[in-house]
Amino acid sequence: MVRLGHMPFPRIALAQIDTRVGDVDANAQAVLDWARTAAQAGAHLVVFPEMTLTGYPIEDLALRASFRRGAEAALQRTARALADEGLGDLAVLVGTVGEKSVTPVHEPGAPEGPRRPTNQAVLLQHGQVQVRYDKHHLPNYGVFDEYRIFAAGDDVCVIDVLGRRVGVVVCEDIWQDGGPVSQMDENEVSLLVVLNASPYEEGKGHQRVELAARRAHEVEAPVAYVNLVGAQDDLVFDGGSFVIATDGTVLTSAPQFVEHLLVWDLLGDDDAPATGPIAPPLEPDEEVYRALVMGLHGYVTKNGFRSVVLGMSGGIDSALVATIAADALGGENVVGVSMPSVYSSDHSKDDAQDLAKRIGADFRVQPIKAMVDAFEAEIPLEGVAAENLQARVRGVILMAISNREGHLVIAPGNKSELAVGYTTIYDAGSIGGFAPIKDVDKSRVWALARWRNNAALDGVFGPGEIPPIPESSITKPPSAELRPGQVDQDSLPPYDLLDEVLDAYVEHAEGRAELLARGFDPAVVDKVVTLVDRAEWKRRQYPPGTKVTALAFGRDRRLPITTRWREP
Amino acid sequence: MVRLGHMPFPRIALAQIDTRVGDVDANAQAVLDWARTAAQAGAHLVVFPEMTLTGYPIEDLALRASFRRGAEAALQRTARALADEGLGDLAVLVGTVGEKSVTPVHEPGAPEGPRRPTNQAVLLQHGQVQVRYDKHHLPNYGVFDEYRIFAAGDDVCVIDVLGRRVGVVVCEDIWQDGGPVSQMDENEVSLLVVLNASPYEEGKGHQRVELAARRAHEVEAPVAYVNLVGAQDDLVFDGGSFVIATDGTVLTSAPQFVEHLLVWDLLGDDDAPATGPIAPPLEPDEEVYRALVMGLHGYVTKNGFRSVVLGMSGGIDSALVATIAADALGGENVVGVSMPSVYSSDHSKDDAQDLAKRIGADFRVQPIKAMVDAFEAEIPLEGVAAENLQARVRGVILMAISNREGHLVIAPGNKSELAVGYTTIYDAGSIGGFAPIKDVDKSRVWALARWRNNAALDGVFGPGEIPPIPESSITKPPSAELRPGQVDQDSLPPYDLLDEVLDAYVEHAEGRAELLARGFDPAVVDKVVTLVDRAEWKRRQYPPGTKVTALAFGRDRRLPITTRWREP
Repeated sequence: MVRLGHMPFPRIALAQIDTRVGDVDANAQAVLDWARTAAQAGAHLVVFPEMTLTGYPIEDLALRASFRRGAEAALQRTARALADEGLGDLAVLVGTVGEKSVTPVHEPGAPEGPRRPTNQAVLLQHGQVQVRYDKHHLPNYGVFDEYRIFAAGDDVCVIDVLGRRVGVVVCEDIWQDGGPVSQMDENEVSLLVVLNASPYEEGKGHQRVELAARRAHEVEAPVAYVNLVGAQDDLVFDGGSFVIATDGTVLTSAPQFVEHLLVWDLLGDDDAPATGPIAPPLEPDEEVYRALVMGLHGYVTKNGFRSVVLGMSGGIDSALVATIAADALGGENVVGVSMPSVYSSDHSKDDAQDLAKRIGADFRVQPIKAMVDAFEAEIPLEGVAAENLQARVRGVILMAISNREGHLVIAPGNKSELAVGYTTIYDAGSIGGFAPIKDVDKSRVWALARWRNNAALDGVFGPGEIPPIPESSITKPPSAELRPGQVDQDSLPPYDLLDEVLDAYVEHAEGRAELLARGFDPAVVDKVVTLVDRAEWKRRQYPPGTKVTALAFGRDRRLPITTRWREP
Repeated sequence: MVRLGHMPFPRIALAQIDTRVGDVDANAQAVLDWARTAAQAGAHLVVFPEMTLTGYPIEDLALRASFRRGAEAALQRTARALADEGLGDLAVLVGTVGEKSVTPVHEPGAPEGPRRPTNQAVLLQHGQVQVRYDKHHLPNYGVFDEYRIFAAGDDVCVIDVLGRRVGVVVCEDIWQDGGPVSQMDENEVSLLVVLNASPYEEGKGHQRVELAARRAHEVEAPVAYVNLVGAQDDLVFDGGSFVIATDGTVLTSAPQFVEHLLVWDLLGDDDAPATGPIAPPLEPDEEVYRALVMGLHGYVTKNGFRSVVLGMSGGIDSALVATIAADALGGENVVGVSMPSVYSSDHSKDDAQDLAKRIGADFRVQPIKAMVDAFEAEIPLEGVAAENLQARVRGVILMAISNREGHLVIAPGNKSELAVGYTTIYDAGSIGGFAPIKDVDKSRVWALARWRNNAALDGVFGPGEIPPIPESSITKPPSAELRPGQVDQDSLPPYDLLDEVLDAYVEHAEGRAELLARGFDPAVVDKVVTLVDRAEWKRRQYPPGTKVTALAFGRDRRLPITTRWREP
């Protein structure tokens, strides 16, 4: 759209891309590639996610001067390369690590030092760095440690795009009242752009839209919100970039969990705003399932692996994890190993084989009896020690196959068993490089399995797909099968009840008094609380896993292991 | 000492005690017991370490309202119990978790919420809480996460002790210029007391004294510095409390690594200050060795264990760790398991047995051949995969003995091998609950072994002791003995060179350019840097270990696992 006798309306492109922490060369190349695509789409400004060149979160890497030098060199190279490719007129907003001299005046809690890193947005244009903006609000809660790492900025950033004033802020800057946005209303911006690396968490999409709406109202201009997409360690970034009007209407939005270029025209300040495609919202189970697939895919591929190996017991946890792995990497890149003991039921072995066939996995059977016998002949064991031995022999088998063939071992343990310590350390459920459903409670494991099977019937993952998970894996009572007739409910409350108590005690930090006031059985409360408080050490042994709720064990719960606090 | 016609001079007691995180009842009982002892010694004021009632560091526990209620109830009970025991006149300064309403004005990086925890010092006297002081400076670097957890205080605290004005601050308050101490010089205090939980780090004692001297000069009054003692997870608190004069002279000091009541009289402002016993400084190897002993003792006992089990290979790492364990828990509480393979040398087995005899450990021999054969008969393996299998069979054996007999498994891996990933995940060197020398590099392992043997000859640990570590464990070339003739230097640079490069690259965060400028061989630099950057995942699998340097792996180095930053 062109205004007669005027400059054209600015076309804004939101480049919702995947980056990798530390891989500045690859990230810089992605900026070039997507900037070219944006230019081809007629964009005048392309906005990338927070800390594009460095990846996010870079944690201690920011404190390493050689890393900051490397990122700065990549930034300068990128500015020149854009111009060399004929993209010099395009305004390119990227994120990177900056530097700032900090005067020795007191800042509470901040480390001292002459030069400190900043979380920076940079405008590249005409072959040069044109403008730098340092993020003001540095989150220091949940998964975020920014305030301990970065120095805060204190300037407001407004850039010019075809004669229009565009405000620039970064992520947390719009989550706090006050700060750079509140100083912008007097600057009369026509658009506010926000560079984000906002990790996925169930239900967070609504919060982002509400916050952006509040800021759009505050600056009396639309807000363009571009989010990172992809997985980095235990974090998943779900994308879902959007543009929102001053009245809170979403004008256009990008799908979650894929790289995407969202293009939108900034019309005149007095015109009705342009609208574009709206990505339909995902229903909750699909959203979580796709986050888990992206989480596993990112972890495996960013660590240089192509395939995974896991124990397939025929139970629901390994069935769901194998299916997630097949969706992330292709069934041919999933090695499933059935490791029956003398206590394994026939249906378990059959279910594992059936699952492998449905998802196209490389399926193997490796009985553990000979190895267990060899240990027991030398080291007499009874009870739990004997049960754990069987479980650990399975761990050794998987590690051996991993060493021999180069597959990453993945751990199918779920959040409920991890929370209460119902797991053998170093068994097939807890060893390895990544625990895909570490933050998914058992009730949700069943729900996701059912959703995934229905998605097959609905053709979500392609036409004519057979439901991947055998029905009996979903319906049978869960069991570790480490002694005759064992089922989980010998040791634990029913999972629906357990998960309710865990949600209140762990996610919502309620005490015993609050739990009793909710009407939970005191015996159940005491049992769950005791198990959770004692399981800390086991949880620390788990590998990282995809985070999908506010509180995942590990990063968020930093209790000292030796704590002796007991809910009174 | 009594002034005629005046009130007596205040006698100050610094109660350098051990606490346990979360164990508010036991910590409160310790306050009562030590207050009684202080009163018996004629004290008018007794000062306890930072966060006495809650233990330190409490991390996320502070965010749990039920925990804060529990700590407050213990505080009130303690105030009453002191009075009930006839100690109502004694001024008792304890630390605990407080609460503060935070107005919604912006605080950078701070989580929002109506009530937030504080790091609080409280004066108990006459059966009541008399004064509360919230710590101002909340450290947010290294092992500290206080700024993300606590709200900062903004009031100055001066209490009255027998008519004399005594300023009260907490730990980091004296590490930063400005803040509460700078506001005190106008208040004309006669003494500044500082409640601390200052973790041990080699050489830190000098820093504490220098800082305290600066503040003493600033307020023109002596500073009484009381530090926590004992171990909590990977942190060791070494005590070493002291009183320092305005001219920087240490007037009296407590020994490190033991609970102690240091008593000192505050004479008149115009008198020469009183002096008392001075604890002689420990030489560096002894200080680190005692920190390691305290670290292991605290971890084992605070987790409810009495004994440990470890693999004894005859090598220097397991020899040193077994000796530390014997010094921490008694040799009779150490189970050493020799697990020879077909590649184990006779001298290795002999050295392990010899060590066990010298330290009085329960020594067992469990060959691994039968179990290794059972695996290899089922799963053909070659090269590193076969080596790792042997190592992991040992891990399973130790876990089985631990399960059967209730000993905590300890991991003898050292910092050098951990840094470069020269270790098998889930082997006898890396599994278990605690890694005592995780933060001690290989060069230091040898130095500590030599120091410990000399200490035996010098009678440091009692008269007539035999040097515990066999000379050949110290002098022979280190080897994993997983294939014929293997030695560590097949794969790694010599340890003295490796440790120098690691110190520069890891502890001092130097880049490749700086390492080369120091004159290191580029091939060595590239090898070490590549190994360190790739070993992150292995390091995360290690259990906690005693932290004795500024940068231990784990807590301090928070790099994402999937990072692809490579020193250019």
